[in-house]
Amino acid sequence: MNQVKRVVIVGGTHGNELTGIYLVQKFDRAPELIARSTFETIALLANPKACEIGRRYVDIDLNRCFRQQDLDNPHLASYEAQRAKEIYRSFSSINTQQQNLIIDLHSTTSNMGLTFILASHHPFNLQLAAHLTSVYPHLKLLASPTNHQDSPLLRSISELGGTLEVGAVPQGVLDASLFQQTEQVIRTILDCVETYNQGTMPVATNPLTIYHSIRAIDYPRNENGEIEAMIHPQLQYKDYEALNPGDPMFLTFDGESVLYEGTATVYPIFINEAAYYEKGMAMCFTQKQIVSHGS
Amino acid sequence: MNQVKRVVIVGGTHGNELTGIYLVQKFDRAPELIARSTFETIALLANPKACEIGRRYVDIDLNRCFRQQDLDNPHLASYEAQRAKEIYRSFSSINTQQQNLIIDLHSTTSNMGLTFILASHHPFNLQLAAHLTSVYPHLKLLASPTNHQDSPLLRSISELGGTLEVGAVPQGVLDASLFQQTEQVIRTILDCVETYNQGTMPVATNPLTIYHSIRAIDYPRNENGEIEAMIHPQLQYKDYEALNPGDPMFLTFDGESVLYEGTATVYPIFINEAAYYEKGMAMCFTQKQIVSHGS
Repeated sequence: MNQVKRVVIVGGTHGNELTGIYLVQKFDRAPELIARSTFETIALLANPKACEIGRRYVDIDLNRCFRQQDLDNPHLASYEAQRAKEIYRSFSSINTQQQNLIIDLHSTTSNMGLTFILASHHPFNLQLAAHLTSVYPHLKLLASPTNHQDSPLLRSISELGGTLEVGAVPQGVLDASLFQQTEQVIRTILDCVETYNQGTMPVATNPLTIYHSIRAIDYPRNENGEIEAMIHPQLQYKDYEALNPGDPMFLTFDGESVLYEGTATVYPIFINEAAYYEKGMAMCFTQKQIVSHGS
Repeated sequence: MNQVKRVVIVGGTHGNELTGIYLVQKFDRAPELIARSTFETIALLANPKACEIGRRYVDIDLNRCFRQQDLDNPHLASYEAQRAKEIYRSFSSINTQQQNLIIDLHSTTSNMGLTFILASHHPFNLQLAAHLTSVYPHLKLLASPTNHQDSPLLRSISELGGTLEVGAVPQGVLDASLFQQTEQVIRTILDCVETYNQGTMPVATNPLTIYHSIRAIDYPRNENGEIEAMIHPQLQYKDYEALNPGDPMFLTFDGESVLYEGTATVYPIFINEAAYYEKGMAMCFTQKQIVSHGS
């Protein structure tokens, strides 16, 4: 692999996720914090209009605008569709010789702590992930199987890097502790890329625990599409914990439990994420995999 | 005091505070849950348009539209100004012979647990508050000194009742446990009104702990009005706990603590409420008062 030429730290892909927005503003004021000797670092506010009004998006969700067919479609003219095309043109390293690494900063109302969602299984990403989990043992690794062509997500514009997801934090709220943790992880990633470019990146051989998204689960809904149950109190805040057959998942408004009827243990994440009510998702099931690598 | 003729349970005063919205919908489907023999109970969705779009408000904050001079002003024509006038005309018991009691359901991103904010210090409210805290010892009582004329809040349209505030819950999220707790408190209030009307309400003489709002505290801001610090991690989630002179309040983006420089111990609430960033309020200071009554 060539050296990494550019790292793009993206905040404000969603205009109500304040951690990334305020980090990008901080880096704009003090670019020396993210400068390294072997590559260029850019701090990018992805959706300035949405940030201004404090909403997830203006017209449509920017982080669903990066499918190749949509990027190529001149008829898509919403604000976010245009922003996606601009961001893709400026920072994609798909079909180019230049290696960019993307760090897309998000926050969630789910209790996911610090999660690094890998943009791909590129060997560099796995090395980076191994390094991050050795420094931050509580950091979780998540893989969502997509390829660049089909993925609507911003992180799909580069194979290298991924999304940093932190929570639980409400929309429109800054949590100082999660702000500082996110900043630390960013610095560690930058230092890691620097050592990679200098040929001194330590080879990590520790086994990785990677959670793989397997299925989105919607709320129970009536014929009008209205939700009929809430996340069960025993499941609330339990992201990444085992959900076993027969465990409660939902609680109806009348107080009846809805149980998990699957046959396999799963590890739900994005439990009760505010932005996913409209997307028909109460949580996402994952499977847990231990990956030996570098051996 | 005359008998209470009508109890109005209000949800959706803010369209992104889901607890009250879903409770009102539940009561609409099953009115027998809130029916009592001596008074009429109404479940009211205060801001239907805001609920539909899942935002706090459409044009302006409905819960700032109830000043008498604004209700009397025919030139105020925003959606919320009109809704306020309709709600006032239908349900106010100011200047009428009919005793209404209002329960306005809200949620907050602050860690305030269950809080009952008294609409007034009417003796009935103090009796109700005493009864509630004897049943729910963790329920907090809050007084915000305003009179009906000047108060912009929905709860000011009646002397009886007040606001039920529950948290911490993000905007746009249903928390099953807080949903059930809110419903329980509503039922207890209804039962309490029933016994009052029947002349069998037990006289509570337990001393009350009442928190009194004394001052709103803004974030440190620069000359452009942008915030320069976050709630300090040591203060986050510590609503109703003592803040003493010298304790940390804020943390700048560069990691410097901003200390509380007052001379008196205060009890902050609404710490890091999402909706109050735009209102210039990082928290609200309260004083704690022990009230002996009924003795």
